[in-house]
Amino acid sequence: MELTLDVAREVLAAQPFSVLLGARLTAFGSLAATLEIDVRPELLQQNGYLHGGVLAYAADNAITFAAGTALGPAVLTGGVTITYLAPGAGITLRAEAEVEHANSRQAACVCRLSMLSADGTVTLCALAQGTVRTVKL
Amino acid sequence: MELTLDVAREVLAAQPFSVLLGARLTAFGSLAATLEIDVRPELLQQNGYLHGGVLAYAADNAITFAAGTALGPAVLTGGVTITYLAPGAGITLRAEAEVEHANSRQAACVCRLSMLSADGTVTLCALAQGTVRTVKL
Amino acid sequence: MELTLDVAREVLAAQPFSVLLGARLTAFGSLAATLEIDVRPELLQQNGYLHGGVLAYAADNAITFAAGTALGPAVLTGGVTITYLAPGAGITLRAEAEVEHANSRQAACVCRLSMLSADGTVTLCALAQGTVRTVKL
Amino acid sequence: MELTLDVAREVLAAQPFSVLLGARLTAFGSLAATLEIDVRPELLQQNGYLHGGVLAYAADNAITFAAGTALGPAVLTGGVTITYLAPGAGITLRAEAEVEHANSRQAACVCRLSMLSADGTVTLCALAQGTVRTVKL
Repeated sequence: MELTLDVAREVLAAQPFSVLLGARLTAFGSLAATLEIDVRPELLQQNGYLHGGVLAYAADNAITFAAGTALGPAVLTGGVTITYLAPGAGITLRAEAEVEHANSRQAACVCRLSMLSADGTVTLCALAQGTVRTVKL
Repeated sequence: MELTLDVAREVLAAQPFSVLLGARLTAFGSLAATLEIDVRPELLQQNGYLHGGVLAYAADNAITFAAGTALGPAVLTGGVTITYLAPGAGITLRAEAEVEHANSRQAACVCRLSMLSADGTVTLCALAQGTVRTVKL
Repeated sequence: MELTLDVAREVLAAQPFSVLLGARLTAFGSLAATLEIDVRPELLQQNGYLHGGVLAYAADNAITFAAGTALGPAVLTGGVTITYLAPGAGITLRAEAEVEHANSRQAACVCRLSMLSADGTVTLCALAQGTVRTVKL
Repeated sequence: MELTLDVAREVLAAQPFSVLLGARLTAFGSLAATLEIDVRPELLQQNGYLHGGVLAYAADNAITFAAGTALGPAVLTGGVTITYLAPGAGITLRAEAEVEHANSRQAACVCRLSMLSADGTVTLCALAQGTVRTVKL
């Protein structure tokens, strides 16, 4: 099965947790994937910012999809490191993941997470790195 | 304000994202915190396991609460590393975080994430480490 | 080949970089390994503390040896996260790694790095986590 | 004190451990720093590859110097995550670190570690991420 943006969106739609969060894939292919989530009240923490867990989810999933462009659909994420840089303030979270290295068994990715505000400014709010491995089916 | 389990539960209840996920604090104090989430269909990924993003949220938040027992309530999580070890299969996710080191400005924590199954078995499914810093108010 | 402390010490002695740093194994077995390095002038940074790179080496290698108690000698370290907690001041660095989870292909370990001072005090100075995988020979 | 390549090289020369490893700065400035180490027998592990601890040192130090271009000389590295991608085979290790985000107190950096072979090929062998904070003097 070739992994196109349409197929990747079907995979995302088959993840109930991604549906619950309202995540959408806006780019997929060429060793990269972009995931976006519009900010809603139920995604916030107690100070009115996007909860760090939403960023961690977005990093994890964007990295997994980016790796899928190199490894195919049968993958498992081995681990993710996320560094929080700025409060998640704005209207949309954008997680852009790129494959930095891949062989037949593993891909290593970097993910930049930004908040988009209503006036169009983009603020980097977290940086992540992760590894994804192929699964023997 | 002394941080007791009751106060910590109020903080958790003030996090809309934690309410959305159904997280509950089952222990808080003595340099440790335990967060639990019952598995529901909307928290899964496409293969029927708990989504990695739920584990990442739980690690992030359990680490933040554990650090709060050392640092007080005004904290920011600097970063988290999570390693996935086994599929999230079972009825309840338990994230147990402990402070390994703290001074007046920062705490470093380890978090073990386990799945509890209906027959009572407990399976470690992820391991995390994170740092939390005090915020100047 | 059974991996005993003596065999593990032979492996360490076969690592020229470990010999250069003066590392010694003081415990090996039962899902744990301890590595020690005596502080010498050439291991310091510009402020007179042990260089962070020495701590990073010790975390990496202690984790690899601890994993070897579970996985055998044919292993590769996949990655390590190290958090620095206090300056490396004292006479000996001790890196104590434990296996938190292992199956036939991978082990995940935690490592606590402490400085021992001349008067016997022990100060935690870094916390690390890492994964190690078996290699197909 | 303005941090130029020459000043940064003096700082590196004041780190006995960096001198022991033979590290040199080949670029410094504009939110980036490059550190190189020529492979020598005493930097290897038991299979003839560069020891992972050398890569971990290089990632740690390249990230710290890159952060110094944004934060100035009074900094402490908070933590580093390194993912190993390929054996360290070749004649020179090159660690290229870039600042991804910086404010007045902290910088977050990515570091790509490559091996240069005698025939000029460059192979990515590790990927790292780290945070560096300013120190109150």
